[in-house]
Amino acid sequence: MLKTNIQTFIGCEADYRDATHVLYGVPFDGTTSYRPGTRFGPSAVRAESFGLETYSPYQDKDLTDYAVFDSGDLELPFGNPVRVLEAIEARATTILDDGKFPFMVGGEHLVTLGAVRAAFKKHPDLHMIHFDAHTDLRDDYLGEKLSHATVLRRCHDLLGDQKIYHFGIRSGDRPEFKWADEGHTTLQKFNFDGLAQALQAIGNKPVYFTIDLDVLDPSEFPGTGTPEAGGVTFTALIDALIAVSKQANVVACDVNELAPIYDPSGRSTALAGKVIREFLIALQK
Amino acid sequence: MLKTNIQTFIGCEADYRDATHVLYGVPFDGTTSYRPGTRFGPSAVRAESFGLETYSPYQDKDLTDYAVFDSGDLELPFGNPVRVLEAIEARATTILDDGKFPFMVGGEHLVTLGAVRAAFKKHPDLHMIHFDAHTDLRDDYLGEKLSHATVLRRCHDLLGDQKIYHFGIRSGDRPEFKWADEGHTTLQKFNFDGLAQALQAIGNKPVYFTIDLDVLDPSEFPGTGTPEAGGVTFTALIDALIAVSKQANVVACDVNELAPIYDPSGRSTALAGKVIREFLIALQK
Amino acid sequence: MLKTNIQTFIGCEADYRDATHVLYGVPFDGTTSYRPGTRFGPSAVRAESFGLETYSPYQDKDLTDYAVFDSGDLELPFGNPVRVLEAIEARATTILDDGKFPFMVGGEHLVTLGAVRAAFKKHPDLHMIHFDAHTDLRDDYLGEKLSHATVLRRCHDLLGDQKIYHFGIRSGDRPEFKWADEGHTTLQKFNFDGLAQALQAIGNKPVYFTIDLDVLDPSEFPGTGTPEAGGVTFTALIDALIAVSKQANVVACDVNELAPIYDPSGRSTALAGKVIREFLIALQK
Amino acid sequence: MLKTNIQTFIGCEADYRDATHVLYGVPFDGTTSYRPGTRFGPSAVRAESFGLETYSPYQDKDLTDYAVFDSGDLELPFGNPVRVLEAIEARATTILDDGKFPFMVGGEHLVTLGAVRAAFKKHPDLHMIHFDAHTDLRDDYLGEKLSHATVLRRCHDLLGDQKIYHFGIRSGDRPEFKWADEGHTTLQKFNFDGLAQALQAIGNKPVYFTIDLDVLDPSEFPGTGTPEAGGVTFTALIDALIAVSKQANVVACDVNELAPIYDPSGRSTALAGKVIREFLIALQK
Amino acid sequence: MLKTNIQTFIGCEADYRDATHVLYGVPFDGTTSYRPGTRFGPSAVRAESFGLETYSPYQDKDLTDYAVFDSGDLELPFGNPVRVLEAIEARATTILDDGKFPFMVGGEHLVTLGAVRAAFKKHPDLHMIHFDAHTDLRDDYLGEKLSHATVLRRCHDLLGDQKIYHFGIRSGDRPEFKWADEGHTTLQKFNFDGLAQALQAIGNKPVYFTIDLDVLDPSEFPGTGTPEAGGVTFTALIDALIAVSKQANVVACDVNELAPIYDPSGRSTALAGKVIREFLIALQK
Amino acid sequence: MLKTNIQTFIGCEADYRDATHVLYGVPFDGTTSYRPGTRFGPSAVRAESFGLETYSPYQDKDLTDYAVFDSGDLELPFGNPVRVLEAIEARATTILDDGKFPFMVGGEHLVTLGAVRAAFKKHPDLHMIHFDAHTDLRDDYLGEKLSHATVLRRCHDLLGDQKIYHFGIRSGDRPEFKWADEGHTTLQKFNFDGLAQALQAIGNKPVYFTIDLDVLDPSEFPGTGTPEAGGVTFTALIDALIAVSKQANVVACDVNELAPIYDPSGRSTALAGKVIREFLIALQK
Repeated sequence: MLKTNIQTFIGCEADYRDATHVLYGVPFDGTTSYRPGTRFGPSAVRAESFGLETYSPYQDKDLTDYAVFDSGDLELPFGNPVRVLEAIEARATTILDDGKFPFMVGGEHLVTLGAVRAAFKKHPDLHMIHFDAHTDLRDDYLGEKLSHATVLRRCHDLLGDQKIYHFGIRSGDRPEFKWADEGHTTLQKFNFDGLAQALQAIGNKPVYFTIDLDVLDPSEFPGTGTPEAGGVTFTALIDALIAVSKQANVVACDVNELAPIYDPSGRSTALAGKVIREFLIALQK
Repeated sequence: MLKTNIQTFIGCEADYRDATHVLYGVPFDGTTSYRPGTRFGPSAVRAESFGLETYSPYQDKDLTDYAVFDSGDLELPFGNPVRVLEAIEARATTILDDGKFPFMVGGEHLVTLGAVRAAFKKHPDLHMIHFDAHTDLRDDYLGEKLSHATVLRRCHDLLGDQKIYHFGIRSGDRPEFKWADEGHTTLQKFNFDGLAQALQAIGNKPVYFTIDLDVLDPSEFPGTGTPEAGGVTFTALIDALIAVSKQANVVACDVNELAPIYDPSGRSTALAGKVIREFLIALQK
Repeated sequence: MLKTNIQTFIGCEADYRDATHVLYGVPFDGTTSYRPGTRFGPSAVRAESFGLETYSPYQDKDLTDYAVFDSGDLELPFGNPVRVLEAIEARATTILDDGKFPFMVGGEHLVTLGAVRAAFKKHPDLHMIHFDAHTDLRDDYLGEKLSHATVLRRCHDLLGDQKIYHFGIRSGDRPEFKWADEGHTTLQKFNFDGLAQALQAIGNKPVYFTIDLDVLDPSEFPGTGTPEAGGVTFTALIDALIAVSKQANVVACDVNELAPIYDPSGRSTALAGKVIREFLIALQK
Repeated sequence: MLKTNIQTFIGCEADYRDATHVLYGVPFDGTTSYRPGTRFGPSAVRAESFGLETYSPYQDKDLTDYAVFDSGDLELPFGNPVRVLEAIEARATTILDDGKFPFMVGGEHLVTLGAVRAAFKKHPDLHMIHFDAHTDLRDDYLGEKLSHATVLRRCHDLLGDQKIYHFGIRSGDRPEFKWADEGHTTLQKFNFDGLAQALQAIGNKPVYFTIDLDVLDPSEFPGTGTPEAGGVTFTALIDALIAVSKQANVVACDVNELAPIYDPSGRSTALAGKVIREFLIALQK
Repeated sequence: MLKTNIQTFIGCEADYRDATHVLYGVPFDGTTSYRPGTRFGPSAVRAESFGLETYSPYQDKDLTDYAVFDSGDLELPFGNPVRVLEAIEARATTILDDGKFPFMVGGEHLVTLGAVRAAFKKHPDLHMIHFDAHTDLRDDYLGEKLSHATVLRRCHDLLGDQKIYHFGIRSGDRPEFKWADEGHTTLQKFNFDGLAQALQAIGNKPVYFTIDLDVLDPSEFPGTGTPEAGGVTFTALIDALIAVSKQANVVACDVNELAPIYDPSGRSTALAGKVIREFLIALQK
Repeated sequence: MLKTNIQTFIGCEADYRDATHVLYGVPFDGTTSYRPGTRFGPSAVRAESFGLETYSPYQDKDLTDYAVFDSGDLELPFGNPVRVLEAIEARATTILDDGKFPFMVGGEHLVTLGAVRAAFKKHPDLHMIHFDAHTDLRDDYLGEKLSHATVLRRCHDLLGDQKIYHFGIRSGDRPEFKWADEGHTTLQKFNFDGLAQALQAIGNKPVYFTIDLDVLDPSEFPGTGTPEAGGVTFTALIDALIAVSKQANVVACDVNELAPIYDPSGRSTALAGKVIREFLIALQK
C-alpha cells in the first residue's frame, strides 16, 4: 500500500519513543523589525537537508547512528508574541518531561525565550551560551518588551546576573554594551576568544545553548535578515559548537535566524543544515 | 547653503498648511501569515516614484496641479497590532481634524482598520468599497481577532450590515463567502461587475475606499505576498478607481499590500506608484 | 505523543484505502534540453499549497469534501530515462489496479509516457487530450527517442492515429506541424478553439489528459523552462480543464513543467497549486 | 580540424555576400537615466535564441528560408554618445551601401538616431513608425540634447513635421504630448488604433520602423528599465509589426530596450527573440 | 503639524552650519564599461543605513557624538561626463570653502576626479591613497580620456609623479602595472602591505583618500559591477581605513562602486553603510 | 566586409594549427541529482571572460603570449550519459592526436570520465589529481554506474589503486571515505595539505588534473549546485593549481561544476574565468 509523504530533517527518523533528541521548528518572525523571512527557516532547512549527507567528516560520525525525532513545526498566531512564546514553552516542556532533549530551529531569536522558560523550570541554575552578531540586550524596542532585540535581556530577567555568556557580538547600541560590561553578562566581541574559560567557569551547570546564525560572516551566511560584516567562519563556528556541546552540560538548544529568501544560491540553508547535523552529532554523549 | 535630503512621493511637495490631501506610509506586516514584506511597500514606492512622470495620460491632468503633502512613514512596534492600529488611527484623525484627506499607503491590509476607525468617528454612516483578491472576512485567524485575514470583518463589526462592497474577490474559505451571502456585505467575485450599481446605492454617503493591490492579476503585480491568479488588469483597476473617486463621496482611502521583494523587476512598485498618482488626481474635486 | 512531520498537498489527507484519487510527484527533468528545474515542481507545489484555500470559488466546492491521497514523490535515477519511465508506469499501474485515479505532478513532460503506458494497458482504446505550448512531436531529439521533445510522438506510437488532440500549441519545428496535419493527430494552434468538438468526437472513450503548464502565457506562469509568449490565460485554462474533466471519461492525468526556480515571485507555483485544486475538484463525479 | 566558436542569432547564418538582411547589435545604455542594463540586450537575445525554433507558426514560414547575416555587436565608448551615434551611423551606412537591410538590436532607444541618420541620407523623404510606451519627445534631458528621452525629437529635427507616427504611448511629460498634438507628429495613446490609416497615409514612402519593446505590457515583458503598466500584448505587437512590415516600405529598423537583468525568468529575452524572428520573416518580400 | 519626510544617512542629522563633515551622493555610472548600477549606491546605502546602529564596537564611539550633514545626491546629466565632473567639483568646492570636509559616496570611480580637482585647488601638494582591485591607470579607454578605467591616470595628470599610493590592486592590463612600476605611482598588489611606510612617507601632507569598495573580496562584497576574486576582508579594510584616517592629513575622501542590484541579500549595502560609519567616526579628530 | 560574430574565451584566439592548448566546453548536467544548471557553465564563462583582463598579476604573464584555441561547446543528447561520454572522449582524442593539450570546461563532474578515457588511451600510467568538495567515489547512485557521484570511482576502475589524489574533500558517505582509506586512493580532507608530497610521489608520470570548483568555499563561489561550507579560498586554489601545473606532467585537465544561475552577482562566473586564465598560463612550459 502506498505510504503518505513524511518529511523530516535528514537522518531524524527515529520513533518518538526511542528518540533521545527531538527537533521542532518555530516558523515565527513576528517581531522582526528589519527584514522578515526567518519564518521560512525551519521548512527550508528540512527540505534542503536531502542534499546533505548524514555522515560528518568533521566528527567522523553519522547522524543515523543516533535516535533523533523531527516533530515538525508549530502552528503560530502571527501578531501575538505572548501566545507564540507560550506555544514554544509548551512544546519544549513536553519534550523535557518525556526525558528528551529539545532542539529548536527558529525563526527569529525571540523564540529562544519560550524554550529558556521551559528549561529554567527544570533547571533553576540555568546558564546560557549565546553565539550572535547582536547583543539583543535592549530593555524594550519601541516600547515592546518582547522582541528579537530584547530576547537576551528577557532571559537575563529570568536567570539573573553572571549567567549569560555572549560570543561573536559586533552590533548593538552603546548602552547595551555598557550594561553587559557592568557585570550583568559576559560579552566577547567579534569572535570566540574566552570560550574555554567560560566553559571552565560554567563547569557542569545546566546550559541553554542558543546559536543565532548571523554570528557567521555574511559572506558565508547571507541568508539572514540583518547581515553584519566581520563575522566568524563556518569552521570556527563548528569548532566552537562542538566544544560547547562536548564540554558543557547542554540541556536544550536552538539554531535560529535563517531567512532563506535573502540567499538565492541556497548555500545559507545548506550551511544551516550542516550546523544542525554537526550539532546533533556533537550533543550525543 | 546646502539643503538636507527630503524624499517625498513625486509631485507631493506641498506645504502641509496648503495641502488638501496628505499621504502617510504604514510599514507594517506583523500579522501577515504567509509571505511578509509589505513593510517595505511605502518606502519603495516613494523611492520608485522618481521614475514616474507627474502627468497622467489617462486623465490628462498633472499631479503638480494639486496640493498634496507626504508626511512620511509611521514608526511602529512590531509584535503589537493593538498599538499599531492606535498609531494609525491617531495619524488619520490628525489629518481629518485638520480638514484634509488622509491617503494611507500600506503595509498589510490590517492597517485599514486603524484608518477606518478614524473615519468612522467623523462619519458614523461610513460605507466601504473594497477591492481585493481575498475576502478578509474571517472572524479570527488562529485565534487572533486582529489579522490581515479578518480586517474586513472587524470593519463590519464597526460599520454593520450592508455597508461594505467587495470587488474582485477570488480566494477565501467557504464560510467567508457564505457569511457575506447571508446579507452582511455585498461581494462580487473576480471582477468589477456591479460597481455602477453599488455606487448608485451608496449615493452621497461617506465612503472609505480600500484597495488591496493583490486584486490585480499577479502577472501585472507579482510583488505581493499572496498572489492569486485570475485577477483584474491594471486598466480595469484604473477605470474602477477613477469611477469610485469621481462618483462617490470618498472621505479617506488606502492602497496596500505591495511587497517589493517578490518582484525583482521593480514593475510592481512602478505600477503601485501609478495607481497612487491616478488615485490622487482622481480624488481632486 | 508528538507526531512526525507529514507533508501532503493541501486537502489531500485521505487514508489510502478510502481515496478515490491518488497524487504522486515525479521530480524528473533529465532530458530537458534547455533550462532544467522541473524536478523541483512537485515538492514546491506541495509546500506552497499551504498558502491556498481548499475552497474553489470557481466551482463552489471544497477539496476537503473528497477523498484524495498524496503518495509523495518517486525517487528516480537521473541519467536513465528508461528506468524512470518504468518507475512511473509501476506507480500508475499500482494506483489503477487499486481502482483509483492516478494524478501525476511532473517533472518534465517525458514523464507522461510512463503514465500513458499504464493507462493504455488498462484502456487499449485510450485517447489523449494535450494542452501545451509545444508540439513535442519530434521522432528523435539529437538521436534520442525518449525526450521531453518527443513524448507525444512516443504516445502516438502506442495509441495510433487520430487519438491525440493538442491545444494551445505555438512552438515547434515545421516538420512537426506538418506531420500532425497529415492526419496523425489533431492540432489546435494558440488556444482552445475546437475543444467542444473534440470532446464530442471522443465521447465516452477513455482519455489520458496531460497539461503542460507552459500552455499558459509566461506573464501568468513564468516558472517554466521554455516560456513561449502568446499563451492562454489562467481563466481560459481553468474553463477548459473543467470542461474536459466534466465531459470526458478521463482515466488518468498529469500536470507538468513547473520549474519554480525561474519565478522568484512564487506565483507560478501558487498558480500550479490552484490548477491542481481545480483539477482534483473537477474530476470528482 | 576543429572550428572556432561562432555565435549568431539563430537561423542568421548566411554568408554576408548573399545576405539580404544584416543584423547588428548596439550594446549601449549610456544615457539611460533610470535603470540601466540594455547594453546586455543584444548578446542575451543572441544566446537565448538557441532556445527558439526558426519556424514561425504565426506566419507559417521558416527563418532558414531567407538569407540573414549577423554581424555581431559594435564596440562602443561609454560616456560619449556623439561617438556612439557616429559608429552606429557608419555601420548602418555600410549595410545600406551594400544594398542590404540594416536590422539593429539595441541597446537604449537613443541608438535609433544613428540608424535614422544613415537611412535619411539615402531616403530624404524618410518617415518613421514608432512603437513605444514613452513619447521620447523632450527637447533636452537635464540639458543634454542626446538622450533616450529626446531621441524621437532629434529624429523630428531631421525628418520634419508630419513624418513620425507613434503608437502605444502611455508615459511622458505634459508638454511632450502637447507638442505632438500641435501637429508635429501623430501620436496614438495606449494601443495600435489608427495603424491602418497611418499605413495608408504613408503609402510607399520609405519608413524607418523602431520598436521600443517597452510598448509591451510589463507583465509580458518585465525585462526593461522603465516598465509602464497598461501596455499592449505580444499578440497585438506581432500583428502590428507584421502589418507594418508587409504593407509599408520599411528601409531600416530596430528593436530596442531589452534589459535582461530585470527578468530572472528569461522570458523577456525569449520574447524579444521571437519578435526578431517574426520581424525578420515579415520583412521578406 | 506633520513633518515632511527627511531621509539622511543614519546619524547624519546635524544642521549644515554646525557640521564638520558633509556627505554628498553622486549617483553616476555613465562610463561604466561592464555592468552598470552604481548609480543606485548612494540612495541604497542611505535607505539601508536605518538597519545600522550609530555605535561602533570597533572604535567604541558613536556617530551621533559628531556633527555630520547629509546634503543628498547631485542630479546629473547621463551621457556627459564633463558636466558631471564639473557638478561634483562645484559641490566639493562649496563644502571646502565653507571649511568643512567633503565626504562623497559614489557612483562609479570616475567621480573621484571631480572631488580631487576641488581638493587640488585648495591643496596643490595633494597626495592620494587609493584602495581598489583595479589599477584604473589607462590613458584612455576605447579612445575616451574620462572613464572609470582611467580615473587614477587623470588624477596623476593633476598631481604628478610619486603622489599616489595604490593598495589591494589585483586586476589591470600589463602596461598599467608597468607604468606604475616606472616610478609614476606606488602600487601594492593584493593587500595593504606597506601602508605604514606609505603613511610615514606622506607625513602631514594633504591626502585625498579614495576607497573603491571592490578592493574587498567579492564574497564579502558581491554588490559591485566588476567583482575580482582574491580581495581583502572587511576587517582588514576597517583597520586600514582607520589607520589612514587617524594618521594622515585627509582633506577629502570618497567611498564608491557599490552596485546594490548585484546583491539581492543586501549585505553589500549594509557593509558599505558600516564602512561609511567607521570612516566618518575615524575622520573625527 | 562585415565579419561574422565569433565568440571565444578571452585571449584564446589562436589558429587551431598553431595552438598548443585547445579549450572545449561540455554543457552537460544530465546526471546531476540535486540542483542542475552546470550546462550553462561553459557559455557563461566564455561570455563573462570579456570582463577579464588577459594579464595575470599572480604570474606576471599574459594569456595573449600563448597560443590557445577555443573550439566551442559539444552538442550533447540529454538523457544518455553513455553517448555524452563518447562524444567527450572523441573530442579529447582528436585534440591529443593533433599533439595539443585538451582543456575541458564542464558541465557536471561526470564529464571528466570521457576525457580521462582519452588520456588513459595515450598514457596507460595515468594518475589523477582531483580538487573537490565531494568524494565522488560511490560505486553506483540509485543503481546507476555513470553519475556525477560515481565519476572518480569510474576513473579508479580504469586507472587502478594508488593513482588518484583527492584534495579539499568535505562531503560524502561514510563508506566512500572508508573505501579511499583502504588504500584505493589518497584523500586529503578540507584543504591542500600534502600536495607537495603527492607531487613528489607522482614525479614525472602523466597526470589528469580535474578541478571541481565546488572545492572553493561557497562564500567565494556560490554558483554551483551543491555548495559545501568550509571550503578553500580562491588564493589557495590558485596557488595549488599553479603548483600542480608547473611541477606535474599534466597531460589533460578540466574545470567543472560552475552553475551560473545560482549566483545572480555573477562573481562565480568571473572567478571561474580567472581560474581558467591562471590555469592556461600556468600550463605553459
